[in-house]
Amino acid sequence: MFSFKELTAQFTKHFNTAHFPKEPQSLYAADDYFLGLGGKRIRPVMCLMGNELFDEIHDDAWQVATAIELFHNFTLIHDDIMDAAALRRGLETVHFKYGSNTALLAGDVMLVVAYEYLNKINTSYLKSIINIFSKTAKEVCEGQQLDMDFEKMQNVVLDDYLKMIELKTSVLLAASLKMGAIIGGAGEGNQENLYQFGKNLGIAFQVQDDYLDAFGDPDKVGKTVGGDIRQNKKTFLLIHAMETANAQQKDELGQLLQTNPENKVERVLQIFRDCNVDDWARQLKQHYFDKALFHLEEVAVLSARKKPLIEIAGFLIQRDY
Amino acid sequence: MFSFKELTAQFTKHFNTAHFPKEPQSLYAADDYFLGLGGKRIRPVMCLMGNELFDEIHDDAWQVATAIELFHNFTLIHDDIMDAAALRRGLETVHFKYGSNTALLAGDVMLVVAYEYLNKINTSYLKSIINIFSKTAKEVCEGQQLDMDFEKMQNVVLDDYLKMIELKTSVLLAASLKMGAIIGGAGEGNQENLYQFGKNLGIAFQVQDDYLDAFGDPDKVGKTVGGDIRQNKKTFLLIHAMETANAQQKDELGQLLQTNPENKVERVLQIFRDCNVDDWARQLKQHYFDKALFHLEEVAVLSARKKPLIEIAGFLIQRDY
Repeated sequence: MFSFKELTAQFTKHFNTAHFPKEPQSLYAADDYFLGLGGKRIRPVMCLMGNELFDEIHDDAWQVATAIELFHNFTLIHDDIMDAAALRRGLETVHFKYGSNTALLAGDVMLVVAYEYLNKINTSYLKSIINIFSKTAKEVCEGQQLDMDFEKMQNVVLDDYLKMIELKTSVLLAASLKMGAIIGGAGEGNQENLYQFGKNLGIAFQVQDDYLDAFGDPDKVGKTVGGDIRQNKKTFLLIHAMETANAQQKDELGQLLQTNPENKVERVLQIFRDCNVDDWARQLKQHYFDKALFHLEEVAVLSARKKPLIEIAGFLIQRDY
Repeated sequence: MFSFKELTAQFTKHFNTAHFPKEPQSLYAADDYFLGLGGKRIRPVMCLMGNELFDEIHDDAWQVATAIELFHNFTLIHDDIMDAAALRRGLETVHFKYGSNTALLAGDVMLVVAYEYLNKINTSYLKSIINIFSKTAKEVCEGQQLDMDFEKMQNVVLDDYLKMIELKTSVLLAASLKMGAIIGGAGEGNQENLYQFGKNLGIAFQVQDDYLDAFGDPDKVGKTVGGDIRQNKKTFLLIHAMETANAQQKDELGQLLQTNPENKVERVLQIFRDCNVDDWARQLKQHYFDKALFHLEEVAVLSARKKPLIEIAGFLIQRDY
């Protein structure tokens, strides 16, 4: 059994290889550049852990983990185009460095290469892995579309926002674990519990992310807070505030969303606090985190084997903020 | 055995179904819209013919044909974004109608759905079909990148242009035939000859396309000629002219490429004629067409079975222009 840290190091080393042909350099340099920006490699590590929960890590888990990380990077390249983002991990995005057209193609070809890795695995579970992978890929695209739709909407209902987060963020964590579990020989019940563990963990993570952007300690979070508020981003906090605020607070929030006064962040935060949005968000995060852990407990293997997954959950969901 | 016309009608009917979920409508309406624009469906029909050359059409050939047509449409949606094209088949492109971001995602998800169709076929040849499909998909992306690179270059060598056309246009025709042949149970030699038939046919088609845009009869071609010249597009004709023109002609061509005089088309055409580019292009087309037919002849099945493929070749490559 490997720890979260060990598996991350191993995967990072494994992944640090040539995934693309040399030519045309004008296309593949963009892919190499983006992968070189690094990343936490959480999703592929979850795939490896999903395997190791049931059996020694099989070669196929490395192929699927690689496919998952390539898929994730493909979505980031295309998301950056859609968001017109200039920076990713502190460096230029692909479309800023190579132009939108090359970035578009570099993403496309990365998705194809992800499928090439999938296609290397054992035929016995090839179809079920490709099925899960493709279903998840579609869902991630759907989540991104909903996210863009919500940006243009005045009011978003909490359930709809939750669904969007599930699609855009959670299902890939969930599917990574499940695909690993299949390679490890898990039965369907265990696969499903692992999937639910990943899905709920992802939601808890996003609630925490929204919470920290508003109420986090800048020193611990590592960035100035209030970014989402300044950008009028739909978040768990804003949506809940809109749902629970009284008429006067709702009016003020509505006005603050349409203007950019200097004290916007403080005023929105005050309304959040007055509506107990901070408490509510902490509870919501805990709710999904508990739900995740419940499903992990339900997985029928010795508790000791679950240690790396509890470790990764603890890494994603911090209790001290 | 079905004729080209019959297979086209059958595929069109088969393809005219819901390929995408209903929700989110904001994403999938864009996909449905684009598929609704129609198309000649040449590639999927070639897949069906590749199968029928060796055996009755298997259910799997319909799945692969559907995947091929979805892949082709995915490339068109993304190409239209890259080219900033407003019209496709006389109607609005996806990015004009739904915005670039949705068009990007609509393309992405269409590629994923193409893989979903592939994943339905018999496990015995699933891996080899996905391999060919993915290899071809990468090549098509590479061809599009080269095409964009060439636009920015002053001089393009004929061999490089040929390679670009092969990747961007020909390999998908070739792979469609080959995948069909695999489903039909063809041996490797026959698969390879069919692939070469498709590849050379694709090149001959592109030479003809470039030729007709310059020297075609507007009534027969169905559009005004000289569009490529007006847009300074690299074509077989322009590249050959630059390679064979004398110093004075080269100077004039160079100047014409940098300016837009009213008689630009006529003057360029005159240089083309003076350099015998028209004769050369007709011969080049014939060369690749003959090469294609040679490989078709090499396929070891009764000549009568090849009739639909000869029909489709004749449809693509007209002799009377």
